[in-house]
Amino acid sequence: MLNITGTYTDKYELVMGQAFFMTGRMDQHAVFDYFYRKAPFNGGYAVFAGLLDLLKILEGFHFEKDDLEYLKAQGFHDDYLNYLKKFRFTGNIYASKEGEIVFPACPILRVEGALIETQLIETVLLNIINFQSLIATKASRMRLVAKDYVLIDFGLRRAQGMGGYHASHAAVIGGFDATSNTRTAKDYDLQASGTMAHSFVQCYESELEAFRTFASTRPDDCVLIVDTYDTLRSGVPNAIKVAKELEKKGRRLKGIRLDSGDLAYLAKQSRAMLDKAGLPYVKIAASNQLDEYLIRSLLEQKAPIDVFGVGTNLVTGRPDAALDGVYKLAQADGRSVIKISENVTKITLPDKKQVWRTFDKQGLFLGADVVGLEREKKISVMHHPFVPHQSFAIKGYDTEPILDLVMDKGKIVYDPKKLSETARYCQDRLEMLPAEYKRFENPHVYKVGISSRLKAMRDRLIEHYRK
Amino acid sequence: MLNITGTYTDKYELVMGQAFFMTGRMDQHAVFDYFYRKAPFNGGYAVFAGLLDLLKILEGFHFEKDDLEYLKAQGFHDDYLNYLKKFRFTGNIYASKEGEIVFPACPILRVEGALIETQLIETVLLNIINFQSLIATKASRMRLVAKDYVLIDFGLRRAQGMGGYHASHAAVIGGFDATSNTRTAKDYDLQASGTMAHSFVQCYESELEAFRTFASTRPDDCVLIVDTYDTLRSGVPNAIKVAKELEKKGRRLKGIRLDSGDLAYLAKQSRAMLDKAGLPYVKIAASNQLDEYLIRSLLEQKAPIDVFGVGTNLVTGRPDAALDGVYKLAQADGRSVIKISENVTKITLPDKKQVWRTFDKQGLFLGADVVGLEREKKISVMHHPFVPHQSFAIKGYDTEPILDLVMDKGKIVYDPKKLSETARYCQDRLEMLPAEYKRFENPHVYKVGISSRLKAMRDRLIEHYRK
Repeated sequence: MLNITGTYTDKYELVMGQAFFMTGRMDQHAVFDYFYRKAPFNGGYAVFAGLLDLLKILEGFHFEKDDLEYLKAQGFHDDYLNYLKKFRFTGNIYASKEGEIVFPACPILRVEGALIETQLIETVLLNIINFQSLIATKASRMRLVAKDYVLIDFGLRRAQGMGGYHASHAAVIGGFDATSNTRTAKDYDLQASGTMAHSFVQCYESELEAFRTFASTRPDDCVLIVDTYDTLRSGVPNAIKVAKELEKKGRRLKGIRLDSGDLAYLAKQSRAMLDKAGLPYVKIAASNQLDEYLIRSLLEQKAPIDVFGVGTNLVTGRPDAALDGVYKLAQADGRSVIKISENVTKITLPDKKQVWRTFDKQGLFLGADVVGLEREKKISVMHHPFVPHQSFAIKGYDTEPILDLVMDKGKIVYDPKKLSETARYCQDRLEMLPAEYKRFENPHVYKVGISSRLKAMRDRLIEHYRK
Repeated sequence: MLNITGTYTDKYELVMGQAFFMTGRMDQHAVFDYFYRKAPFNGGYAVFAGLLDLLKILEGFHFEKDDLEYLKAQGFHDDYLNYLKKFRFTGNIYASKEGEIVFPACPILRVEGALIETQLIETVLLNIINFQSLIATKASRMRLVAKDYVLIDFGLRRAQGMGGYHASHAAVIGGFDATSNTRTAKDYDLQASGTMAHSFVQCYESELEAFRTFASTRPDDCVLIVDTYDTLRSGVPNAIKVAKELEKKGRRLKGIRLDSGDLAYLAKQSRAMLDKAGLPYVKIAASNQLDEYLIRSLLEQKAPIDVFGVGTNLVTGRPDAALDGVYKLAQADGRSVIKISENVTKITLPDKKQVWRTFDKQGLFLGADVVGLEREKKISVMHHPFVPHQSFAIKGYDTEPILDLVMDKGKIVYDPKKLSETARYCQDRLEMLPAEYKRFENPHVYKVGISSRLKAMRDRLIEHYRK
């Protein structure tokens, strides 16, 4: 991955860091929350992803010699640069589990430590978490509609440059099976997948010759692209010929791939031709601008597609492009703080907080997370964060705290799961989320409330700042 | 930047490479074209960006030891891996100038070389060029409406992970002045920009104390964020106080920044308050989900904003997320080839091609590029690529070939411009593009035609493959 050092940040972090340094405020204790405001894709939830990548980056976050030289040329002070030379992040981080299902306005991650350190990591934290969570969420929507069919990420060529690197990783957390992205597959031990392009077919005098040649080099993993010239009149018949030739050698054609045209129609016709030829085992893969809506539509039409290859709409999260996650100060030097806004939904929550998720009798998510002060032990009522006099009794329901210590004094202190386990955890949690929160059209709003004590503290602070 | 090695690719490139290698076809001569099909943002053009980054990556493109070990574990053959061990790209590349204005269906870049080499670089080429061209195009639209006002990229925190690295670079090619992204500013010698966040203000007991402290650490570059508590009742009055205190020390407050609320209203009110206080020199910067439409609207409302900070919508190219650039085989082993499609607009153009741009008497773009065979010397008529019997005489107009040799046998052979010159070239060329092609709503369609000889060759090939 990119050598992410101290300059991988917005300049204002470095400017503020210098101000904290120069005015003796750098070591004051600070608490920041990471949360997002609006679920992407007009959906009802997000999948939290990128945690382990972030923590590994933070463990190694430092300034290289050329970073410091550059900052010196930018006019930063020598004393400050001497401090940055030895900079390490030594704070604590409490976080939701990677793969957790998380909801708007609810703290997902909390950073505690020296003010200067907690400020300097803001941009990299947002950069890594916002993007991976966006893509894991997008992937989870495709997994939802694709049920047990195979989903493969084909996105690297249309990814946002090097963003493709982490996109393929996040897609697997959200429910994808494999990726064409060899570098990410290698670095994260993902299943890599790849067969042939139109250019391969074009290189040969005939499509049949191209198929035969390719099959000769791929004894056990041969998928033929059938739409270079004419899917039903040339591609599929040639693939059937090659499959029959393979059978004579005791081998089996693995599949064909459709990459253009009406995928539902072509899949049905191709399936019928393959079956008629006695090749029911040959799978059909389809690709071409797929997204969760098209996959759903293809399956509703009973298109006999076994494998979906998804590119641009997966790895860029189109049409949303970004999760709107923010990093907001909640406590400074022991003082609980908020940010006021004319838009009440943008007023932040003060102090060190925990989130409790509630469960119904069946062990499913009840549809309510309550945010309270970390030191609270028993919360019986949650309040609507903005609408007065709206509350909800959570007494009697099982609750579970969501934020766990994952980094202690700058060191990772939990045992990270294997990626396959993280992906499994994500699916398990999604299964605990009732369907009405997962539907694409007007999903039910998952309630996020605040405890009585947190509400009282926030209201006092609003009064204070409004004066 | 990311250490981009041979595994930074779709696996199928490596699979096809192995097939070419095993069947003795690897060294056959091949020609590929890069082009896109649809202008992004419903606009009329794209800005070509990422060329120099791509060429530098290709100069160093190789497989590391761990790449090869991984590929071995993936079942690739030893002989092929031995070949990859020494792999270098030694082909030729002809390209449009970086910063050039380019149009749909027109070759922007042509790769020639050994089949295996030209195939193996496909994914990285698309990954780098598609994204940077998307962002440079987006940036150029903002520059168009922002005229001479300052545009600063604030996007790193919402960028698509490491995609933010090249986004900030491409934004400058398209017309941005500066970036908050310190790493990219350092690596590309861009102007870095950054001041303060709400969290800085929140750290202090009062906003005024925060402003005073910040000003004390930024003698010559102090911009104060004024919307932490209440823009007009607290932020701006406190900024004015600090500006007056600075004046007593012979210094000047550089600016204030608005980051929420109705930016037009707040800018007008703030400007009036600053002017009334005798501070006409204090600039107003604005940010908060800006895009080209909002910037245009703010300026239409005569909002007195001097500096626009643009984040997510710039660095992700929202709502488009990707340029649909493709890499298509045009010649293999001396044979001109095409890819057929039921959709005629997707049928590719065969053979080695050049593009000529036509100019009117004033030296402006006439609105017509003609694609011909590279060996053609004189083209007098261009034909509509798909609609029969539509042609256009270009005799008498000045023309200019667009594709130049930029890489010869794997080495960069042109003198790359400084980034500022590339950005200047982009603006110069945009000025040569008449306004009707640049407007946001239903832009005029720039004509891309083909020469008589190219048309005849393509039509023959369609006949051949349709049989």
